Amino acid sequence: MTFVVYLAGQIHDDWRETLIEKVQEKDLPFEFVSPQTNHDLSDDIGEQVLGEQPGKYYKDDAASDINNFRTQVLMNKADIVIALFGEEYRQWNTAMDATTAVNKGKPLIIVRPESLIHAIKELSNKANVTVETIDQAVSVLEYVTI
Amino acid sequence: MTFVVYLAGQIHDDWRETLIEKVQEKDLPFEFVSPQTNHDLSDDIGEQVLGEQPGKYYKDDAASDINNFRTQVLMNKADIVIALFGEEYRQWNTAMDATTAVNKGKPLIIVRPESLIHAIKELSNKANVTVETIDQAVSVLEYVTI
Amino acid sequence: MTFVVYLAGQIHDDWRETLIEKVQEKDLPFEFVSPQTNHDLSDDIGEQVLGEQPGKYYKDDAASDINNFRTQVLMNKADIVIALFGEEYRQWNTAMDATTAVNKGKPLIIVRPESLIHAIKELSNKANVTVETIDQAVSVLEYVTI
Amino acid sequence: MTFVVYLAGQIHDDWRETLIEKVQEKDLPFEFVSPQTNHDLSDDIGEQVLGEQPGKYYKDDAASDINNFRTQVLMNKADIVIALFGEEYRQWNTAMDATTAVNKGKPLIIVRPESLIHAIKELSNKANVTVETIDQAVSVLEYVTI
Amino acid sequence: MTFVVYLAGQIHDDWRETLIEKVQEKDLPFEFVSPQTNHDLSDDIGEQVLGEQPGKYYKDDAASDINNFRTQVLMNKADIVIALFGEEYRQWNTAMDATTAVNKGKPLIIVRPESLIHAIKELSNKANVTVETIDQAVSVLEYVTI
Amino acid sequence: MTFVVYLAGQIHDDWRETLIEKVQEKDLPFEFVSPQTNHDLSDDIGEQVLGEQPGKYYKDDAASDINNFRTQVLMNKADIVIALFGEEYRQWNTAMDATTAVNKGKPLIIVRPESLIHAIKELSNKANVTVETIDQAVSVLEYVTI
Amino acid sequence: MTFVVYLAGQIHDDWRETLIEKVQEKDLPFEFVSPQTNHDLSDDIGEQVLGEQPGKYYKDDAASDINNFRTQVLMNKADIVIALFGEEYRQWNTAMDATTAVNKGKPLIIVRPESLIHAIKELSNKANVTVETIDQAVSVLEYVTI
Amino acid sequence: MTFVVYLAGQIHDDWRETLIEKVQEKDLPFEFVSPQTNHDLSDDIGEQVLGEQPGKYYKDDAASDINNFRTQVLMNKADIVIALFGEEYRQWNTAMDATTAVNKGKPLIIVRPESLIHAIKELSNKANVTVETIDQAVSVLEYVTI
Repeated sequence: MTFVVYLAGQIHDDWRETLIEKVQEKDLPFEFVSPQTNHDLSDDIGEQVLGEQPGKYYKDDAASDINNFRTQVLMNKADIVIALFGEEYRQWNTAMDATTAVNKGKPLIIVRPESLIHAIKELSNKANVTVETIDQAVSVLEYVTI
Repeated sequence: MTFVVYLAGQIHDDWRETLIEKVQEKDLPFEFVSPQTNHDLSDDIGEQVLGEQPGKYYKDDAASDINNFRTQVLMNKADIVIALFGEEYRQWNTAMDATTAVNKGKPLIIVRPESLIHAIKELSNKANVTVETIDQAVSVLEYVTI
Repeated sequence: MTFVVYLAGQIHDDWRETLIEKVQEKDLPFEFVSPQTNHDLSDDIGEQVLGEQPGKYYKDDAASDINNFRTQVLMNKADIVIALFGEEYRQWNTAMDATTAVNKGKPLIIVRPESLIHAIKELSNKANVTVETIDQAVSVLEYVTI
Repeated sequence: MTFVVYLAGQIHDDWRETLIEKVQEKDLPFEFVSPQTNHDLSDDIGEQVLGEQPGKYYKDDAASDINNFRTQVLMNKADIVIALFGEEYRQWNTAMDATTAVNKGKPLIIVRPESLIHAIKELSNKANVTVETIDQAVSVLEYVTI
Repeated sequence: MTFVVYLAGQIHDDWRETLIEKVQEKDLPFEFVSPQTNHDLSDDIGEQVLGEQPGKYYKDDAASDINNFRTQVLMNKADIVIALFGEEYRQWNTAMDATTAVNKGKPLIIVRPESLIHAIKELSNKANVTVETIDQAVSVLEYVTI
Repeated sequence: MTFVVYLAGQIHDDWRETLIEKVQEKDLPFEFVSPQTNHDLSDDIGEQVLGEQPGKYYKDDAASDINNFRTQVLMNKADIVIALFGEEYRQWNTAMDATTAVNKGKPLIIVRPESLIHAIKELSNKANVTVETIDQAVSVLEYVTI
Repeated sequence: MTFVVYLAGQIHDDWRETLIEKVQEKDLPFEFVSPQTNHDLSDDIGEQVLGEQPGKYYKDDAASDINNFRTQVLMNKADIVIALFGEEYRQWNTAMDATTAVNKGKPLIIVRPESLIHAIKELSNKANVTVETIDQAVSVLEYVTI
Repeated sequence: MTFVVYLAGQIHDDWRETLIEKVQEKDLPFEFVSPQTNHDLSDDIGEQVLGEQPGKYYKDDAASDINNFRTQVLMNKADIVIALFGEEYRQWNTAMDATTAVNKGKPLIIVRPESLIHAIKELSNKANVTVETIDQAVSVLEYVTI
């Protein structure tokens, strides 16, 4: 039995690679999918597919069409969602992915620094588990298999 | 035929009163509910009901239990959700309420300033309508009735 | 016991008024809602609320945001959907509303002229009842009450 | 991880073969299903299975029974739906398949020529992405995998 | 608090009137709806609305369209379903209504004579309660209110 | 792509073997499951597992527990349901399985002799396709694959 | 706006009356329903309706049919569930009602003494709020209204 | 065709090993998953992942977060749930898992000793089958395959 894990969250550092590596070191039966992690591509995909748009709002709207398409396809396949929140940025798409996991009955782990406890308290309360580090998230995944 | 509207979003100014007043001036058939708008009460409700907690994290977790209880009761009753995002704060509970509206098939209007277009683009893309002002949101509500 | 009926379909003649009048003459317990039947308003509502858009596609997209908001609010309230197809126009929003009725478990009556039998056969096959005239649709509504 | 794509839409040209070929050239992990693309068979299948019917309406109704059976079986298996609208015909079964994708939470790409922007605006607004060419649709599929 | 009860089952005797009278004598808060109990009308409604059909099968199919429309409208409103099976007839529409109640989460009482225990055992097993007499069914309804 | 077909219906002749053989001759990608077709076992399984029961009603109720368990496990796995009604017996469990298929969105083929057209008309109206012979049912299955 | 509250839990003391009185003193907009609180009636209702059963197991099974009927009817009407666990008895029906509330999206308050923290930890974790006293539960209800 | 079985229930003896061994002896196509059966680990996992907590309640709450995560991941994968209740302990998490199986449409076998008939009667009434021994549960599983 293997499990698909959707890794929602910021795309400004390499936290996904770190997490996946730790899971692979332990040889755990998890496969990973994620939103587009190439930030420029994620911003430009709308114009890249649909052509130049008449302004920033329209460029963003076109990109979000295709980013949301990708997320919906991959999250439909996921057995588990991990959502990582960092200290910068609004990260509302991460909050959206995490909430969708809850509403669709997909078990959810949130990773967030201690500094965000207050800001994320209602969403954290809906997650199955909230942790502070990648290692803790990996321990929770591992717990399913032992 | 009347409609219940859940007003998600920041509780740091009086945008709800402004919106409700404009709707009442036009005598439109909408009734409004909202999260707890008394900010201190919203932060303290956990300890107020359950007693002193052993630290900030536990205080916040207890408060979010009861805030989420309130939101779930009232959003279950809502026909429409309006979510307002302001320029300050992370507002992840607002993002959570807006996403839940989408996932539950409740029509959603997002109100956000132009400065947030990029940050909120994926969530905005899932809303039925995104506007910049209270007046525009009221016009969208009014459109249901004419 | 009263029933809410959503009247999907073309807005180029007064078929809704005709139907409602016949139902009222028989004093039947049905209340009616519908998409925006003011055609110009339906086309212009996007720019009216959101301001001028940078072209026809964007104007149409903005209008459809708000038209779909209205439809979703009102169809959520409906116990029954009647969808009328005429001989002109593509009427894909009518097909969309009719299909949504089927998928949401809302009983559906389609009204269409004999000339459209072939073109609409798969959708007609999913409806509860397909008729050719307003009078027949009224008879089906009446049958619920006798 | 592979994905099943249901190709809804007109059966009067070879757009499906074109799309599938482009996907195979890129060696992307998509498998394709579709409605019956043999137009004569699609019209005659009712009488072919159930015997001669007493008129055109009954012949069409019998055929749509079996076409809808096929569509429901295959769309239940689909992870993604692509719906192509051409300039001819009413294509209400395509609109029905596209709407069902939306209602069932299956990510949807609409392909339609610029000339249909206005007619399809409400349905297009519910799709994840609307494009004008097969190449653009293939780019959206590819985006899920990079 | 009042409850709507759908009375599925045979239309060849006056069991509904008997049951409703007993409920009214006890002044219990139940309101009743049912399929068409005028048997001739139920058989003829298809041709009555749609005109003469080309044979018995087509007459029956047209009638069942409209009977199923009525049932779906009224069962959607029901809080409780009572399905009575008698010793004559196949009563497959009654079995269909009873099964739909189970699948939709509507509490179900089956009334059937002792002679049908074996034939109906799997369906009876899915009902909340199976009884043999109208009086017993009324006692179960009454139990909700005391 | 292969499909699981649940074969609901009478267990008094070998119609399942006939159907499966015809499908295998054509080398079609369908796998079959069914209720318990050993009639005596189906009647006795309750007492066989739970020990002697205090009477016929209790014996039947115990058997139906386990028969319904089997049906639910296997129908959850099914992509398609075929329900065959014969001229003898009440076959309410077949009607129950057919209705459950409809309610769960599983495409349904009903096979019934001409003599039952009237008795089964409402249920037949909810099926995707109703045919009279095994060969016709096989043709409908085959249509999914060509 | 008023709310229906289902009061699940033990029927061996008058906690429901206490809670209802406190809510009425505060004039809060809640209406209450509950399982059968007459313990003897709850145990005997099966035989009372269906006649003497052939043993304790069968008497209990008959009673549970009718108790579950009552619970399902009333919980379907509930906006909120409060489940009280006491120190005696297994109270598995209370655990069942509480879990059903969670699975159906009905906001849940659990009331349990400190001594049960460990035993109920997984269920408590799924509730919105867990408290120790009736007064605390009333405060949570009140919070929805202020 | 193989089936995943979730084995809910007490973790104080080796009933799972016994059951699995009997299924393997018969070479039946079932795969098994379960909650954490290492009792100490199950109690300590919260602190093990999240660090020391400020008291027993908080330790238990942290553990239940991660135990519920595990259960949700594995039960989502299950085709069948078997819930065993023993004579000791409250076993409310077992009642929760069993109820969730019912609410999610997963076929449920309850195993409980005769002494618990009365206490578990309402939950037992919702299960597909209730038995007293492991051997009986294995016979019910086997019945799906013969």
